[in-house]
Amino acid sequence: MGDDAALFPSLTSVNVACGFHAGDPLTIRRTLELAQGYGLGVGAHPGYPDRVGFGRRIVEATPDEEYADTLYQIAALQGMARASGLTLRHVKPHGALSTRAWTHAPTAEAIARATRDLGLPLVALPATLLETEARRLGVPVVLELFPERAYLRDGRLAPRSLPGSSIHDPQEAARRAVLMVTQGRVEALDGGFFEARPDTLCVHGDNPQAPAIARAVRAALEAEGVTLRAFSVPGLPG
Amino acid sequence: MGDDAALFPSLTSVNVACGFHAGDPLTIRRTLELAQGYGLGVGAHPGYPDRVGFGRRIVEATPDEEYADTLYQIAALQGMARASGLTLRHVKPHGALSTRAWTHAPTAEAIARATRDLGLPLVALPATLLETEARRLGVPVVLELFPERAYLRDGRLAPRSLPGSSIHDPQEAARRAVLMVTQGRVEALDGGFFEARPDTLCVHGDNPQAPAIARAVRAALEAEGVTLRAFSVPGLPG
Amino acid sequence: MGDDAALFPSLTSVNVACGFHAGDPLTIRRTLELAQGYGLGVGAHPGYPDRVGFGRRIVEATPDEEYADTLYQIAALQGMARASGLTLRHVKPHGALSTRAWTHAPTAEAIARATRDLGLPLVALPATLLETEARRLGVPVVLELFPERAYLRDGRLAPRSLPGSSIHDPQEAARRAVLMVTQGRVEALDGGFFEARPDTLCVHGDNPQAPAIARAVRAALEAEGVTLRAFSVPGLPG
Amino acid sequence: MGDDAALFPSLTSVNVACGFHAGDPLTIRRTLELAQGYGLGVGAHPGYPDRVGFGRRIVEATPDEEYADTLYQIAALQGMARASGLTLRHVKPHGALSTRAWTHAPTAEAIARATRDLGLPLVALPATLLETEARRLGVPVVLELFPERAYLRDGRLAPRSLPGSSIHDPQEAARRAVLMVTQGRVEALDGGFFEARPDTLCVHGDNPQAPAIARAVRAALEAEGVTLRAFSVPGLPG
Repeated sequence: MGDDAALFPSLTSVNVACGFHAGDPLTIRRTLELAQGYGLGVGAHPGYPDRVGFGRRIVEATPDEEYADTLYQIAALQGMARASGLTLRHVKPHGALSTRAWTHAPTAEAIARATRDLGLPLVALPATLLETEARRLGVPVVLELFPERAYLRDGRLAPRSLPGSSIHDPQEAARRAVLMVTQGRVEALDGGFFEARPDTLCVHGDNPQAPAIARAVRAALEAEGVTLRAFSVPGLPG
Repeated sequence: MGDDAALFPSLTSVNVACGFHAGDPLTIRRTLELAQGYGLGVGAHPGYPDRVGFGRRIVEATPDEEYADTLYQIAALQGMARASGLTLRHVKPHGALSTRAWTHAPTAEAIARATRDLGLPLVALPATLLETEARRLGVPVVLELFPERAYLRDGRLAPRSLPGSSIHDPQEAARRAVLMVTQGRVEALDGGFFEARPDTLCVHGDNPQAPAIARAVRAALEAEGVTLRAFSVPGLPG
Repeated sequence: MGDDAALFPSLTSVNVACGFHAGDPLTIRRTLELAQGYGLGVGAHPGYPDRVGFGRRIVEATPDEEYADTLYQIAALQGMARASGLTLRHVKPHGALSTRAWTHAPTAEAIARATRDLGLPLVALPATLLETEARRLGVPVVLELFPERAYLRDGRLAPRSLPGSSIHDPQEAARRAVLMVTQGRVEALDGGFFEARPDTLCVHGDNPQAPAIARAVRAALEAEGVTLRAFSVPGLPG
Repeated sequence: MGDDAALFPSLTSVNVACGFHAGDPLTIRRTLELAQGYGLGVGAHPGYPDRVGFGRRIVEATPDEEYADTLYQIAALQGMARASGLTLRHVKPHGALSTRAWTHAPTAEAIARATRDLGLPLVALPATLLETEARRLGVPVVLELFPERAYLRDGRLAPRSLPGSSIHDPQEAARRAVLMVTQGRVEALDGGFFEARPDTLCVHGDNPQAPAIARAVRAALEAEGVTLRAFSVPGLPG
């Protein structure tokens, strides 16, 4: 969807759409090669089977369907990565599959099981059922924060309907990223802070400002002496 | 498409559609479990992306697209099998992807490369470019014959337009199977025989007579003292 | 999905899947010709864009998407019918699109608007928001009852989780059909009756018993002197 | 695919993708409304069922499939246009469906029949079987030339593999357009001219230069005193 060539130099990891909400095998292949050229860690980004809606609409599938659909997508990416000499490093659900898993335990469990059954860690937001289910099933969790999105004091993302829920200024996103990484603190839209130690920061690639935000975040973190590298999980490949 | 529960007891291996021309993740999952219950060897059966046409229409894709599409489908099956505690054993292309690979070298090479890059053997008919390309690339070839289809003396399948190209009588199919396996001989529709030592015999599951033919073939081979088991390739899992 | 050739002789109208949850243009074409051969009234049967789930899963589309998707499907059928010398007679939503419209007003309105904008009547169940919205928008309503499904006293279908919610015996379905048509009464699962004058009775074609039920219903109604014919709406084609 | 808002002010007619190779009902709806706002004539742009390949790959469908697929797509657009208060004005095949129809008579006939059965004129290039078949079946033909593509002396488009087959300079495209419209002459890449009186000129919207070329062509024609308006066919709506 976005301008990969402008964005990739600022990143350490990428999430690759697996063909259900976007992507097709040849595009996946080329994205893997591009990621390989920049030395990025690659993850699978499974979504609901809905190309027209770009995976942003809930498909009210059963947990068995969600498990099988997620497993299929991860497996396809994992094998394609291996054929390119890469190791798939993580799983991160996309769009409505992801947001449904924040609050709907059967969906969260289906994703966590598929991730576990292929031996991978799962990227999850704090204060979501996806995190809870992954930890319960023993799936390694990579905790993720968004420097360009506002949060509530209880750790949840601020709904997009709230004013200020999105941060558009790259410098402001960068300031928040530094606070997250160096102090483990996230400013809340409803006042105060909450504590979270992110393993990874995410910038959404389908946002036209993504390259500018990612550059600003990287520069600000490096100015603080932070070394950016693809996350890795002890005992797992990477 | 067919009656799996009636057919599976007579088989040693199955080819599972991967979602492009037929199948979806939950159906694949259930087919894998059914195959596991019968102790069958499982292979991936990739096809052109054409559900409406059941993969029987050529999609004039480029070799890069054919490689990526085939790789994606095999990888999805391979990972799903692994998650079910199974090892994917082989690859066999379906429908128009398969028939195009008999005579079109770029398609044959694309399939052979995808199979090789995931470390699997390839099921191929004798006297086809698919066999040639697989051998050239060092991909282990599992040679396949059809007891319910007629052949020409040069080893090619008789075109379906020729009278007698399909064998409908289970006993006749069984007789031909015994000749193939015990003597390495195939009767030709245009007279005489050709020599071929099959590693596997195939009965098409979308044929309503498939269960009866498979039962007759198995019974006739066992009556000759032949032990039927899933094929395996030295040095490969199985 | 079902055995059209066995079912069609007992019917007066058919609903044709439009390609989103099932069907493809050539199958639609052949179904139209089959319906034409039996002199049946033909309606469009739009559903959610979900072939794998056969339209039985809700896709959480916006009302704008539901309107556009429904309009597209009806329009495709209407034009294909016209090209075959037929006049499309009605619209009836399928699966999850239909059940969502029973209780979700924006979905009901989207379907009713699309039906109105193509000048057709809408088949609806009593006591549903689909009926309410259609009447509010001035769309002619064809009231439909199911002789093989149980109802509650308030006019709603009995949930499938309730024992006795489906009638499997063709004679019992036929008895209920006679009561519906000749007396305008529907027996309720929770006791008593409710009043409804159906314009049409529906037998679900994806039920293996459908041909037997349809035959029994037709025979019982004809024995009561009822003449069965495709429904028509005053002022509309048919 | 392209920048409709930049392109539409220079046009008189547009071809709208129908959902098989691109487009979905909501996008079609919005494109119809945009076209309506600019007062453009709207045509259906059917293609092969291949979203991943954007309709640029031949799908080796049978003529019956090509007829039904084309009919379905045109019918969907025709009804959606009517629901928006527009009249669909023409049909023009897209991509591989179009190029196959230049030289493959069964495909050309299938498209011409579907167009005829919905009462529309067909946009066709000179010296193609699509033109021949349309005229043979009595379908009104709207003759189309491309000012940004080179031609051969026999009236066929120059293959893209030939140097000079595409014109990138808007002024050169405009010069060729004036020659086509005012003199009925097309300069040939292999020397000389051929005669053709275009009813319409086409600029490909998926070309990034399309807005600049369309503006230059319109300005040059208007400077010659040519009035641009949506084409119309005597006896047909428009």
